[in-house]
Amino acid sequence: MRLTVDNINKHVVAAKYAVRGELAVKSEEYRAKIAAGDAADLPFEHVISANIGNPQQLDQKPLTFFRQVASILENPQLLKSEEALVEHLGYKTDVIERAKWLLSKVGSVGAYSASTGVPAIRESVAKFIERRDGFPADPSKIYLSAGASSGVNTLLHTICANPNTGILIPIPQYPLYTATLTLLNAKAVPYLLDESKNWGTDLETIRASYDKAVEEGTDVRCIVIINPGNPTGASLPEEDIRAVLEFANEKNLVVMADEVYQTNVFVGKFHSFKAVLRRLQEENPGKFDGLELASLHSISKGMVGECGHRGGYFELVNFDPEVEANIYKFVSIMLCSPVIGQCIVELMVNPPKEGEPSYELYQKEYNGIFEGLRERATALHKAFAEMEGVECAAPRGSMYLFPTITLPEKAAEAAAAEGRKPDEFYCMRLLEATGICVVPGAGFGQKEGTLHFRTTFLAPGTEWVGSIVKFHKEFLDKYR
Amino acid sequence: MRLTVDNINKHVVAAKYAVRGELAVKSEEYRAKIAAGDAADLPFEHVISANIGNPQQLDQKPLTFFRQVASILENPQLLKSEEALVEHLGYKTDVIERAKWLLSKVGSVGAYSASTGVPAIRESVAKFIERRDGFPADPSKIYLSAGASSGVNTLLHTICANPNTGILIPIPQYPLYTATLTLLNAKAVPYLLDESKNWGTDLETIRASYDKAVEEGTDVRCIVIINPGNPTGASLPEEDIRAVLEFANEKNLVVMADEVYQTNVFVGKFHSFKAVLRRLQEENPGKFDGLELASLHSISKGMVGECGHRGGYFELVNFDPEVEANIYKFVSIMLCSPVIGQCIVELMVNPPKEGEPSYELYQKEYNGIFEGLRERATALHKAFAEMEGVECAAPRGSMYLFPTITLPEKAAEAAAAEGRKPDEFYCMRLLEATGICVVPGAGFGQKEGTLHFRTTFLAPGTEWVGSIVKFHKEFLDKYR
Repeated sequence: MRLTVDNINKHVVAAKYAVRGELAVKSEEYRAKIAAGDAADLPFEHVISANIGNPQQLDQKPLTFFRQVASILENPQLLKSEEALVEHLGYKTDVIERAKWLLSKVGSVGAYSASTGVPAIRESVAKFIERRDGFPADPSKIYLSAGASSGVNTLLHTICANPNTGILIPIPQYPLYTATLTLLNAKAVPYLLDESKNWGTDLETIRASYDKAVEEGTDVRCIVIINPGNPTGASLPEEDIRAVLEFANEKNLVVMADEVYQTNVFVGKFHSFKAVLRRLQEENPGKFDGLELASLHSISKGMVGECGHRGGYFELVNFDPEVEANIYKFVSIMLCSPVIGQCIVELMVNPPKEGEPSYELYQKEYNGIFEGLRERATALHKAFAEMEGVECAAPRGSMYLFPTITLPEKAAEAAAAEGRKPDEFYCMRLLEATGICVVPGAGFGQKEGTLHFRTTFLAPGTEWVGSIVKFHKEFLDKYR
Repeated sequence: MRLTVDNINKHVVAAKYAVRGELAVKSEEYRAKIAAGDAADLPFEHVISANIGNPQQLDQKPLTFFRQVASILENPQLLKSEEALVEHLGYKTDVIERAKWLLSKVGSVGAYSASTGVPAIRESVAKFIERRDGFPADPSKIYLSAGASSGVNTLLHTICANPNTGILIPIPQYPLYTATLTLLNAKAVPYLLDESKNWGTDLETIRASYDKAVEEGTDVRCIVIINPGNPTGASLPEEDIRAVLEFANEKNLVVMADEVYQTNVFVGKFHSFKAVLRRLQEENPGKFDGLELASLHSISKGMVGECGHRGGYFELVNFDPEVEANIYKFVSIMLCSPVIGQCIVELMVNPPKEGEPSYELYQKEYNGIFEGLRERATALHKAFAEMEGVECAAPRGSMYLFPTITLPEKAAEAAAAEGRKPDEFYCMRLLEATGICVVPGAGFGQKEGTLHFRTTFLAPGTEWVGSIVKFHKEFLDKYR
């Protein structure tokens, strides 16, 4: 029997991942046409990939210190000519020191590491968490992963026992969660974020979703929080995090905190779930000692932006040792995460310190990226504020804005005639008219009756923002 | 409800992966003890990790050309000082040319690539396959993956539809296959390889396994072949490959050809399933046009040995376009394989050519690794030939020997008293006595009533071979 879409794994067929879906594929076709010099019929000269948080595809330059160290890790023979590195290639001595230290701990980056990652790197991560949170962290509970995506995959694979397992996920959400739950044939139990409160978590909404699922017989085991938010750009205040932890503790839910945007915070301060949990434990001795928390981080986002290197980690708090042994076994089947990505995790959690030779440049580059993101977010938000029928919360964190769009009835009819949802229709026309690729709200989930799209604010310049404004006006004029 | 081993995903709990199991964990504990200077009570001074094909953890040096190019990809700023690279660091001009070309095609190695890989690298892979096979290959059917393991995971996820799906796998096999099938809750349909014929495939055995499974109602969809063999070290003659393809065609089975050891061949010549299929198609017009073939390759093995970089690819032949679209979607959920690993795939399939500046050194290093492996394989095989109760086929391919061991009845009793299988017991004692970590045959599957272990022949020197001989004699003496 030949494989067809009717007889292969129906959960693979059912899974949806809009971030790299039809629009993204079409945008890549445009890009190839342009590269081939075959774009005379296109009304734009460039494709702007605002569909995915991929900083280095756009304007963001890698951090010099990171890449200098990585170049030595790839070719340790360079250390035979330290003088040339320093004198002719501008490598500072701390670059060379760090590369030597990593090589002494890692061996060759071409060798498999331990499945949970290089021990010394896990120790570095634990020290970083201690500095960040003010509470100790245990290196043996740190698992290095191929980006946070792979960590989410591992954790959901372990937690989901059968089709009746339910996982509370925010709506809107990053579709990795729904896609993985579909693959695992488990249930996403959606809870709506509150757009009116900067996309914060609303405990009554979470409780209602939980209660409804339990009434229907679902075995709800875990709550996922993405903070700072993707696609929403939210940054949760400590009260929201406390409320979620209280609730999870009451209901015995595993808390999965996706914190990959922890340094992309423009308003207020990032609070890690781990730190808030430890504070709650101090304030309420014994009460939270049964709570299981998994926190995820990544080298793909923040000012590091090393998506292509596929590095990240997750930290487990209070998991049963036998469950941990099964998590170890699961990750060992794929052997280990990319070792150079593990090394970049080490650099992320242990960047040059004040007084070290590479510090000044590192800090300058880091701040430049941060300010650039903030400026572009602000400019984009300002443009949205001026567009008719568009409402958008001010940028608070992550790399995205997620505006509400109100579209005319005729646009909805035209969309239906094409078999599309109105937001998908809008985004497709935007791509065709401007070369700008964004993701329709439908790809993340949205409150019934509302329409959105997600755009990154990574693309440089303001011309593309102008193109969105112009397109939007013409779209409204056409379908009014 | 707290997560416990009794309520998490039972398929994760049931999965087995001996290559990184109890023995490997224990060997890492020994390694840590030795590193901490706390090894006075151990009867050995080093741990020899012969449990896993991890060349660069042992003696194998990375290929200079590959790592020089990779260092520039990691730090393109080096190109600002080309003169220094050439004059002070010994980079040849073709290193610089290749790095520039890859950067022009890839952009930053820190950016996500297309989910199936960088288009230019897929084209390079297709050209390599054409040169290797003498038949055309289509770049759009090449999927770059994070090692071959990730490719196997993708393919089995797609093919396995429900608990009744059966996949024919060789016994002994690389346990990635059984582990993944257990995770997917699908059926491994084992077929025994023929130890008496250098671990070749025996069609009657395959047919009998298939018939039995079909009689039991299993929906057998696919046959996996590992060639050169892991753990067996076999290298299949063309007749065996033809017979498998004829059978798969007769029964409408997808053929999954795991060819990651294709350059590790000591006897005869490697025949790719793709080339043999194309020859069959030429000889029998029309007859094989419905056959679906997936072939996998990797940068982890061969003379490249870049396991830690997690690179590889699979090529699909004759898959339904809608099935391919679902494979695309599945890989897109994890975004892309590590981009520097993709670049090393490009270097593997397109190494320096005769007349190019880096060719001589590349060829010298390549041949040195190949000959070193052959010599160590031969030395190890010779030692096994002299050991009482040990039988081992001569090394033909891959990185492993898989000797049969015959153990005294008393050893089996002692093993049972510890709750272990006799081969596990033997391997555990070997590790404790010598620091040498091998994998018991039980981890791969073996014919009932036989016992084996798998060892790589990567470790340098002959001292460790002597330690095995000595241990074996003492073991036999003790339990005789």
